[in-house]
Amino acid sequence: MKTEIISIGDELLIGQVVNTNAAWIGEQMTMAGIKVYQAVSIADDYDHIFEALKLASERADIVLITGGLGPTKDDITKKTLCDFFDSKLVFNEAVFEDVKEIFRVRGRQVTDLNRKQAEVPDNCTVIRNVHGTAPGMWFEKDGIIFVSMPGVPFEMKPMMTDYIIPELQQRFNLPAIYHKTVLTQGVPESEMAAMIEDWENSLPHNVKLAYLPQPGIVRLRLTASGKNRDKLVALVENEIIKLKKIIGEYIFGFDKDTLEEVVGNLLREKSKTVSSAESCTGGYIAHLITSVAGSSDYYKGSVVSYANEIKSRILGVEEKDIERYGAVSESVVSQMAVGVREKFKTDYAVATSGVAGPTGGTKEKPVGTTWIAVATSDKVFAKQFHFGEHRGRNIRRAALMALDMLRKEL
Amino acid sequence: MKTEIISIGDELLIGQVVNTNAAWIGEQMTMAGIKVYQAVSIADDYDHIFEALKLASERADIVLITGGLGPTKDDITKKTLCDFFDSKLVFNEAVFEDVKEIFRVRGRQVTDLNRKQAEVPDNCTVIRNVHGTAPGMWFEKDGIIFVSMPGVPFEMKPMMTDYIIPELQQRFNLPAIYHKTVLTQGVPESEMAAMIEDWENSLPHNVKLAYLPQPGIVRLRLTASGKNRDKLVALVENEIIKLKKIIGEYIFGFDKDTLEEVVGNLLREKSKTVSSAESCTGGYIAHLITSVAGSSDYYKGSVVSYANEIKSRILGVEEKDIERYGAVSESVVSQMAVGVREKFKTDYAVATSGVAGPTGGTKEKPVGTTWIAVATSDKVFAKQFHFGEHRGRNIRRAALMALDMLRKEL
Repeated sequence: MKTEIISIGDELLIGQVVNTNAAWIGEQMTMAGIKVYQAVSIADDYDHIFEALKLASERADIVLITGGLGPTKDDITKKTLCDFFDSKLVFNEAVFEDVKEIFRVRGRQVTDLNRKQAEVPDNCTVIRNVHGTAPGMWFEKDGIIFVSMPGVPFEMKPMMTDYIIPELQQRFNLPAIYHKTVLTQGVPESEMAAMIEDWENSLPHNVKLAYLPQPGIVRLRLTASGKNRDKLVALVENEIIKLKKIIGEYIFGFDKDTLEEVVGNLLREKSKTVSSAESCTGGYIAHLITSVAGSSDYYKGSVVSYANEIKSRILGVEEKDIERYGAVSESVVSQMAVGVREKFKTDYAVATSGVAGPTGGTKEKPVGTTWIAVATSDKVFAKQFHFGEHRGRNIRRAALMALDMLRKEL
Repeated sequence: MKTEIISIGDELLIGQVVNTNAAWIGEQMTMAGIKVYQAVSIADDYDHIFEALKLASERADIVLITGGLGPTKDDITKKTLCDFFDSKLVFNEAVFEDVKEIFRVRGRQVTDLNRKQAEVPDNCTVIRNVHGTAPGMWFEKDGIIFVSMPGVPFEMKPMMTDYIIPELQQRFNLPAIYHKTVLTQGVPESEMAAMIEDWENSLPHNVKLAYLPQPGIVRLRLTASGKNRDKLVALVENEIIKLKKIIGEYIFGFDKDTLEEVVGNLLREKSKTVSSAESCTGGYIAHLITSVAGSSDYYKGSVVSYANEIKSRILGVEEKDIERYGAVSESVVSQMAVGVREKFKTDYAVATSGVAGPTGGTKEKPVGTTWIAVATSDKVFAKQFHFGEHRGRNIRRAALMALDMLRKEL
C-alpha cells in the first residue's frame, strides 16, 4: 500500500515556508506501517492541483493533501476537489457550528468569508477541525482514498492522529503498532550502539530499533508490530527493563519528555530548590530551566559570570585560584557552584566553565574543554568533558550535561 | 522558464529529515527571477529516480536534483543518471584530487568507496565540491538542464550560489537582480505595513517588497530587477534612505545581521561593557549575547533573579517596593538594572520583569505584561510592554526588545 503526500502552497515553492508537514506525515505513516512513496509540493493553482491529484491516483492507494484551505485561498482548492471528485459545494451546518465556536473563543466576528469555509463538497466525509476553521475532507474514488487537510500543522496533526490513521488501520486491517522512545544523555550515538549491540541483536523479530538524531541527545525508538496491542506494550516494556540494566544511568526519560522538565519534576517532588552559576553556557541552563512553566517553584536563579571578576566578586571564587588553575578548572567551577548555592540559599547548584570556541583554546585546554560542577548541602563534585569545536553545540551539550549531572544526584 | 526540484532520499519520506533544501533552493531561484514549478521528494530507488527525471523533463526547463550521492548510496543515483543520459562512468582525476584534499584536511585515509566517488558520467560538466566528496553534475538533454547536487546543505549551497545560479543567469540572459533585507524590531507586521503604505505604493515598478516572518522581528526584503546591477543597488539604497526617514528608529540592521551582533559591535566600537538582570527572560538575554563569539569583550554577565529574594538580596531591590508595586513594575525593574550595573561595574545594564505565562497573570497585569529597563552611568529608564499569551514567544520578544532598547541608547 502506497501513500503520496501533496502539499499545496506557493509559499512552499518560493521558500518562504519549509515543508515540515510532509516530514511529520511521513513519520506518522511509517510508524503506522504504511509506506510513503513520494511527497510533492505544488502551487495554489487549479490546473496544477488537478494534475497532481490525477498523477497521484495513478501510483498511490492513499493520497494525503495539506494546505490550500485558508479563508482567502480555499476557493481554488475546493473548486478543484469538486471537479476532480464530480461533486458540488454544499453548506454544512455542523462545520459552521465549529467555525462559530472557534470565533466565539477568539472573541471575533464571523465574516462571510468564514461562512464559506463551512461549504464542503457533497460527497466527502467531513473531518472536524477542533483548532481552526477549515474542515478536513475524506474522499474515495476508484478505490483510492484522498484526504484534504489544512496546512497549519497545529490543525492538521490532530486530524491525522485522532481520525485518519486509526481509520486507515481499521480499513486495511493493519497490524497494531506500539512505539516507545527512550531518551538518553551523556553517551555519543556510536558508543551507545556498541554498548547495546548484544541487546539489539537479541530483540524479538517484531520489535525494531531506530536511532533518532537530536543535538546533544540520543533517542532510541522501539517499534513493535503485531495483532494485540496490549501484548506489544508488554513486549516493549520488557525490552526496556533489559535496556535499563545496560544503560540505565543514561536514560533520563521517554517519548516527549525533556531533560529540563524531568529535572524540574524531580525537584518539585522532593521540594528542593536549585540555582546555577554559568560561564561558558552563558545563561543557557537558566533559559532551559525557565522555559518550563512553573519553574519558579524550584528555580531561584543564576549568576552568569562571564567575566572572571564576576566569578570572584559575586560568587566568591578565590582570585588566586583563577590565576593558578585558570577559569576553566575543577577548582574554579567547584567554587562557582558552592558560591551560588550559598548566595542564593538553594539546596542544589550547578556550575559550568569551559572554552566554548571558536577561539580561546590552548594546547592543554582546546576548544570544547568544559568543567561542570554540582554542589549539594554536604558536597561538591566536578567533571571534565571534551565537547567539539562548534560554539552553539558546545553550549547546548554543556547545559544538557549539567542538567543530567543534577538529575543523577536527585 | 520553469524549474522542478527533485530531492532524493528515503530519510525524507520516513520523516527522519525535514527537506530544508527544497525551501532554500526555492528561495534562491525565486530571488534570481526563475519560477519553481514544483518540488518532489522521492526514494533512493532506480525506477523511482528514472521516472521522476522523465516526468520532470516533460514539464520543466531546469531540473535541480539533490541527494542520493553519499558514498554508500551513489551507486543507484549515478547508475540512473548514466542510463537516463546515455552515458557511462569515467574516473575523473580532478574530482579525485578534491576528494583526497578533503580527506587530507580531515586527517583520514581515502577508501575505495571514496575513490568511486570520483567516477562521474562522461557527458556531464563537473561542479566542484569544496566542502565534501560528492561532485555536482550538470547535464543537458533535449534542451533541458539537469543538475545533480549532494544533499548535505553545507555542500549544496555553495554550488548553487557560486556556479549554478550565475550560469543560469548568463545562459538565459536573465535580468540582474539585487536584494536587500531591512531588519526591524519593535513594531508588529500589521502596524509596520500601515506606517510604510505610502512609501510602498510609490516604489518604482521594478522594486518589489516582501514581508518575511520571523519570531519577534519583521524583515522587509526589497528586490530590484533590471539590466544594470550598479543602478539597481543605487535604486534600492535610495529607497532605503526614504524608508529610514519613516521607520529609522526600528531598523537595527540589514540582511544577515542579528540584533545581538549589532549590539555587540556597537559596544565593542565604543569600548563599553554591559550586564543584565533577568527575571521573566530567565537567562535568554545572556544566552543571546553569549551566543556571539567574542562577546566576553563587552559582556560581563547576568543575574537571573527568578525568585524575589534574589532581586532584593543580590541586586539590592528594596523589599518594600516589591511588596508595594509587585515584582513586575517600573520601580523594581529599574532597581534591578541599577543594581546589576553597580554590582558588575559595567557601563550599561538591561533588566526585565514580566509575566511570561501561561499562569501568573492578574486583571491588572495579564500574561504578557513586561517591564524592561536600561541603566547608564547617569540615568535609568523603563518601559512597559504587553506581549502575547505564549510563554516561549514572550520570553523571546522581551529579550529582543531589551537588546533593542540598549541599541537605541548606544
